[in-house]
This record gives sequence, structure tokens and C-alpha cells, in this order.
Amino acid sequence: MLMKHVMNSQLSSNTCMLLASSSVFRRQHFLIRSLGVGGGIHHNTYCANMQQHLSSVEVDAESVIRAITPVLDHSRYKGQAGKIAVIGGCREYTGAPYFAAISALKIGADLSHVFCTKDAAPVIKSYSPELIVHPILEESYSVREEDKKIISGKVLAEVDKWMERFDCLVIGPGLGRDPFLLDCVSEIITHARQSNIPIVIDGDGLFLVTNNLNLVSGYALAVLTPNVNEYKRLVQKVLSSEVDDVAGTQQLLSLSKQIGGVTVLKKGKSDLISDGDTVKSVSIYGSLRRCGGQGDILSGSVAVFLSWARQLAADPNSNLSSKNPAVLGCIAGSAILRKAASLAFSTKKRSTVTGDIIECLGKSVEDVCPAC
Amino acid sequence: MLMKHVMNSQLSSNTCMLLASSSVFRRQHFLIRSLGVGGGIHHNTYCANMQQHLSSVEVDAESVIRAITPVLDHSRYKGQAGKIAVIGGCREYTGAPYFAAISALKIGADLSHVFCTKDAAPVIKSYSPELIVHPILEESYSVREEDKKIISGKVLAEVDKWMERFDCLVIGPGLGRDPFLLDCVSEIITHARQSNIPIVIDGDGLFLVTNNLNLVSGYALAVLTPNVNEYKRLVQKVLSSEVDDVAGTQQLLSLSKQIGGVTVLKKGKSDLISDGDTVKSVSIYGSLRRCGGQGDILSGSVAVFLSWARQLAADPNSNLSSKNPAVLGCIAGSAILRKAASLAFSTKKRSTVTGDIIECLGKSVEDVCPAC
Repeated sequence: MLMKHVMNSQLSSNTCMLLASSSVFRRQHFLIRSLGVGGGIHHNTYCANMQQHLSSVEVDAESVIRAITPVLDHSRYKGQAGKIAVIGGCREYTGAPYFAAISALKIGADLSHVFCTKDAAPVIKSYSPELIVHPILEESYSVREEDKKIISGKVLAEVDKWMERFDCLVIGPGLGRDPFLLDCVSEIITHARQSNIPIVIDGDGLFLVTNNLNLVSGYALAVLTPNVNEYKRLVQKVLSSEVDDVAGTQQLLSLSKQIGGVTVLKKGKSDLISDGDTVKSVSIYGSLRRCGGQGDILSGSVAVFLSWARQLAADPNSNLSSKNPAVLGCIAGSAILRKAASLAFSTKKRSTVTGDIIECLGKSVEDVCPAC
Repeated sequence: MLMKHVMNSQLSSNTCMLLASSSVFRRQHFLIRSLGVGGGIHHNTYCANMQQHLSSVEVDAESVIRAITPVLDHSRYKGQAGKIAVIGGCREYTGAPYFAAISALKIGADLSHVFCTKDAAPVIKSYSPELIVHPILEESYSVREEDKKIISGKVLAEVDKWMERFDCLVIGPGLGRDPFLLDCVSEIITHARQSNIPIVIDGDGLFLVTNNLNLVSGYALAVLTPNVNEYKRLVQKVLSSEVDDVAGTQQLLSLSKQIGGVTVLKKGKSDLISDGDTVKSVSIYGSLRRCGGQGDILSGSVAVFLSWARQLAADPNSNLSSKNPAVLGCIAGSAILRKAASLAFSTKKRSTVTGDIIECLGKSVEDVCPAC
């Protein structure tokens, strides 16, 4: 019935839109079948592998990508394909926020911003004129104790000026661990949450929220993307236990549930994704190379796909309205990074660096979901 | 008769010049036919589409490009193909002025300058050694109240040293909205106008002139290049009304007329151009990608083509002397950006970024108007 309604409403539109929307509809319909319906663990053929412990379900990640990637047409204007902001970059780290922000553009976002410290800004700007870099964060060494409150207020006011324009924030790449800076970022997270802006948290952002879980607890639009060590600290803090590799899927489910349904993307040989309701696995592609920076690509990619999935989910006529956009974003981001890493490795082998993988993001998306 | 005179005068020159000039003449002659004669809306085949509202006329943009692009020959020296200056670039924005300035070079200008703040200069310089970057603008945060007058005078004196050498200024890419900086830029616009230097105004430059229309009102060598939002603010301010999409062409004509014949290039699915006398449309090519930065390419491109058209129009023997060089520059700049964006999109698809489009500017010009 819904399908009929959607199809009918499309018939009243012009031919171009009809084709585009039908294509979107077919993709979404396929996605529903790929992900299963009704929530919970989907009992498809993968369930044959279930043993005594709960198993994750390998999803058809390419179908997810096709379902959530927007159809491009001439009526679209700048910004509609996504405006992403990365909060990160300090005196010590400048590569990570650049990798996250440029990855967002290469996936297909229209605008990508970076909010970093004053020291980091000229360097990040110099990596690429494509990014809009705001030199507004401050570290303790440059702030007198008595000025902290005023400066903190200024930082927050500056971010707030932009906040509502963003479709997603990535918090953490190259953030560092300066206490004053992290206090400011805690406030930024709180404001993002008040404005219902999705947040993807990685790197030092995970250090921050692991020590202050209230910042994200219960926020359905938050995504955590821990690597092995970050996951270990999260499990210790949230579940007061050690990582259990045998019952890993169940533990991830419990972890996510315990933080109130925040989506957790646990990076590894297979990437596991849970929102406390389901556990999905992405194992396709991938590379043997473990150069630093791939996590930054992932966080930027997840941010874009999450934004796209959320746009679609907001449409009551969409078949995605019942799906968690954070989970869809993680599945798509994980698969695209793994595909790009695989492509880069096929030519660059041991010498593959993060920039090589970023250069393959466009082809990875195009191979799965042609732009036209 | 004019043709005979031109041909005769060319016969007295050397063979190379004869060939070059004849070629220019043929192009211009074709252009006259393409654009129509006698001003006003040209009643050609496109007028069949005119309904109750005034329609824009799709121009033969490629003929315009061929008519105004200078023929290269060995007698030419550095600077004759255009000296462009971009006024923009502040602590926050550095990509935009770079895009505008490098685009001018890639179209074929000989020299491209940027006048920006001291913070922005090292970053813009780092993007490319091709640009001449002047770190002379100041923002309020770096200037004490009591020093403002002296510093404002110094900024203006520095720009004035160069002013007469430029064929066109691009004002606004990455300018920011600092009040002191905008005050200085208002003075720069006034001086440019006194010196009869054409100005292309985009981005934050539009914010400035929308709030102070006297800066450009009645200046025939001014071009405004608003996007959807910037156009909306202009219409509200100038016509005290909202944007009328149904009678859009008539509204654009009225807008331009109301600002005293300033040329307005309204960016959109089709780019519409008016000087208060005619409304031309450029719809060829184009890309489905809406990444930020394309407006900066356009402003730099329009600046170069406007300079070229003005050089030709200054020749009383030229068939272009009755044409508005600002309109010709807009038509050519619009078409070349759209062609470059189309070329970049054909290979880069969703991952297309502004730098990819800039890399296609040269081929776009060459395809339409081979250098030799």
C-alpha cells in the first residue's frame, strides 16, 4: 500500500523525478530485504553460522550504500548533499582532522569544515583549499586561568554560529587531550545534542566520552568508532569487564544497550556495528595495510552516509523511516573505506598511505552506486 | 563598410597580424549575429518560448567565448592577456580567494594577485607559487581603535599603488564580514570605480554592497554574481519584494535596472545575466555536483573574460564596441565554468571537488577556442 502510494505520488511528478525516485525506491526496497524487517537479529542464511553465542549478521553493505546515497539531479543546490564539520586538530595533530574532512568531500558531501586550534589551522588549511578551517579552539598553554571562562564562552559562541547548518559533526580526529580544550569540546557535544545534530566520535573524542559517558548516553544520533584499544577501555568503563572475544557480539550489543542505544562501530578484521538492538557485520574488501589515518577516513565517511540516511529516514514515505540512520551510516562508511583501502593496496602495496586510500574513495562509491 | 575599412587597414599590416585580426573579425561578426543587434531582448527562435512573462534568451555562449578570447601571437608581452586581482582571504577563509585567483590564470590571464589579511597570506601562498599574494588587509581583532584610521589609510595606499595596473578586481571570495575590513574594502571599491577598473563582486563582497548599494549603483563596469540566497537578499533590499520565480526574468531585469545597469549574473540551473537592458541565459553543460567553491571559479573566470571583452570593445573598429563587456564576460565565464564542471564530473563523479574543476578550465577554453 505504501509502495502504491509512493509510486502514485511519483507519477504525478515529472519524468526525471519519477525515474530518480523509482530508482531510490527500488534501492530502498532491496535494502529492506537485505537488512531484514522487524528489528532484532535477522535470521537469514548467515544464521546457519550461529553457534552457542549470538552471531553478528553480515549485511549486504553495497545495497545499503545504494539505498542511502542521494540521486543527483539538476534541481539540487549547494549544501543538500551534506555539510560536515570536524572538531579536531591541535598543535600536535593536524593530519587526522584533514583526513576526516577531505574524506567527507570525496564521498560526496558539498561542504566540509574543520574547527581546530589556532596553531593547527594554517597547517590544515595548507593541505587543501577545499576545506573551510576555523582557528578557534584553545589549549591550556595559551590561556591564563582567569581567562578560561571567557575564552570557553567565545569558542562555544563561534561554534554555535555554525552549528545548525551542519548535518553531522565528527568529534575527535587529532583533538589531543588538553583538559581545557576537552572541556570546550564537551560543551560542543552538549550543544550538538540539544540541536539534534548527529555526532561521530573517534580518537581523542572517545577518550573524552569514555571518561564522561553522560555526554552521549541515550543519544540515538551518536556514533562511537573505537579501535581495539579504545573498545577495551569502553568495555572496562561501561561493562566493568574485560573484552570477551568468544562472546564478542553479545558483549557489543550489551555495551551499546548500556549506553542507551548509542551506535558503536567496533573496528577490526570484520567491522561490527550495534545500536543495542542488532549487531551487523561488514567483512567485505579490506586491505592488509594498517597505516595510521584509516580511522579518520572512516569517521568522515560515516558522517556523510549517516547524514544521507537521515535525510531519507525523515521522509515518512521512505522505506528507511524505520531504520536507524546511524547504523546505516556505519555500514556504508565501513564498506566504502574497506573498498577504497583494497583498491589502494592493489596498486600501492606496502607503500599504501592514507592519502592513497582517500584518492580511491570516489571510485569506490562510483563502482557501487554510479552518480548517473 | 566598416568591414571593408577594417580589412583594408589589416592589409597594410604584416601577414601574421592580418590572419589574427581577420580571425578576430570573423568571430566578432558571428557574435553580433549570435547576440542580436539593437539591444533589448533579441527576437530570435528562442522567443517562440516566450509566454506571458518576459523570457530570457539562451545565447550562443561558445561564439561569445570565441569572439572575445584574444588571439595569441609572438608580438604580445606579459600582462596583455590580463592582470587580475582578488580582494579576499581572511583568518577564516583562504580557499575561496585561491580558487578565484588561480582560475584567472588557468583561463589565460597573465598575472593574478591576491590582497588578503596577514594571517591568510602564508596559507594562500602555500597553495601555489603562481599567485602574487599581498598580506595587507587587517581585521578588527588585530587593530586598536585609535589606529584604525592610520591603518585604513595604509591599506588603501598599498592597493592604490597597484590599482591602475589591474584589468579587473574580484571582490569578495573569502573576504569574511569583519566590519573594519569591510570598511577598507568599501574604499577600495570606490577607488576602483574612480579609476574605471571593472569589478566582479561575489561572496561576502555581495553582503557588503547589498548593505551599501551606492558603492556600485550606476557603475556599468560592476558585475554581481549572486547565488540563490545572495540573490534573495538583493531582491529584498533593492526591490523590496520576495523572489518571484514565475516572473524571474522580468524581476532580474528590474533589479539590474534599479541598480543603474550593474550587470547581475544570477547563478542557478540556468545562469541568467542582465544589465537592465537584456536578459541572457546560459544553460549549456553543467554538472550535478554542488561542491562549494564553484562560485569562486566563476568570479575569477568572469574577471578575465570581461577584461578581454573590454579590450576589444575599446577598439572603435571592433564590432564589439556596442556590446556591454560585463555581459559578454558573464556569458563566457558562466559557460566555461559549466563546461569545466561537466568535464570534471565525467571522470570524478560524486568525488569531484573544486580543484578538479579548475584543472579542466584549460581544456574547456581550448575545446571552444583553440590557442593556435
